[in-house]
Amino acid sequence: MANPLERLIHSFSKLPGVGEKTAGRYALHVLRASEAYARELAEALVAVKRGMRQCGCCQAPAPADPCAICSDTHRDAGRICVVEEVADLRAIENTGVFRGRYHILHGRLSPLEGIGPEQLRVDALLARLRACAPQEVILATNPTVEGEATATYLSQLIRPLGVPLSRLASGIPLGAEVEYIDTRTLAMAITERRPM
Amino acid sequence: MANPLERLIHSFSKLPGVGEKTAGRYALHVLRASEAYARELAEALVAVKRGMRQCGCCQAPAPADPCAICSDTHRDAGRICVVEEVADLRAIENTGVFRGRYHILHGRLSPLEGIGPEQLRVDALLARLRACAPQEVILATNPTVEGEATATYLSQLIRPLGVPLSRLASGIPLGAEVEYIDTRTLAMAITERRPM
Repeated sequence: MANPLERLIHSFSKLPGVGEKTAGRYALHVLRASEAYARELAEALVAVKRGMRQCGCCQAPAPADPCAICSDTHRDAGRICVVEEVADLRAIENTGVFRGRYHILHGRLSPLEGIGPEQLRVDALLARLRACAPQEVILATNPTVEGEATATYLSQLIRPLGVPLSRLASGIPLGAEVEYIDTRTLAMAITERRPM
Repeated sequence: MANPLERLIHSFSKLPGVGEKTAGRYALHVLRASEAYARELAEALVAVKRGMRQCGCCQAPAPADPCAICSDTHRDAGRICVVEEVADLRAIENTGVFRGRYHILHGRLSPLEGIGPEQLRVDALLARLRACAPQEVILATNPTVEGEATATYLSQLIRPLGVPLSRLASGIPLGAEVEYIDTRTLAMAITERRPM
């Protein structure tokens, strides 16, 4: 591929959810944008591979170990929110309502992907819980078959430690309509109804 | 922004149509991908700014001047397809049915964006048509208000040169249903109906 434009399109098209057409739009945007922008993105790409390590405490990728959240003394070290991926941590941080700390599993139980209890390394989590004896562990894995199985599996390992466990609420998303919500979610919303 | 991950997300979010969330997905993908991929994309970004010039003939960005299309002697130099942007050239090339050459306007008449006849530089196009006297010029600007105005404007300039002009067909897209097509397109499809 001698043509630099085709090469850039090819590289962009390896990003998740990016097809040939979107990659073309991105590449033509870069071609029109300032050279400073191309350099900025190029440097950020290299920096993210060089400058990120894994936080030994929560397992999140971060420029420092421990990461900013784990070393923030204003956060509640007694509440640990267990998530599947970094993207989940980011989503929860964006809500602004959780002031505790995190633990990232980097995966979920998934027989189809060959991830069984052995592959999902939870020793770091268990060691951490034994060491700090938190007030609460929130199992924030996805409400999918795999996420639920992971939460159940973790709860069996954590319960013997005597740590209170919780799970994110499931139900009808705000703004949705009862008429159109899927049956399983609606059933869950009815059985889990809250007093008011 | 000290965190390399946030910096990369910020850079990605400047791409067209990419919000904070998509930028986050891209950045986390890069974080998980091989360092070779990050380097490949970074190098492609720099190369596209350094290695691309503008073809003096068709005005397309290309690694060489004249570009591969303009210097391809197997292509029909007598047919010139005038498009608004490079993305349009790419789309037409993908069809495989046009074997002529191109001319890129890099814009369209757009009073709202302050692009009048003076800003849309067509001297290169007119000089080229005068020099090579093609058999046909296809005005392939978009069938939008701005694209139509541009085509009309160009036709007024080109007609005195005695060059036969054509325009892309407008009508119902293949696979669409008459019932759901917008009124203006359907009206156009009726008035422009073809004998069979």
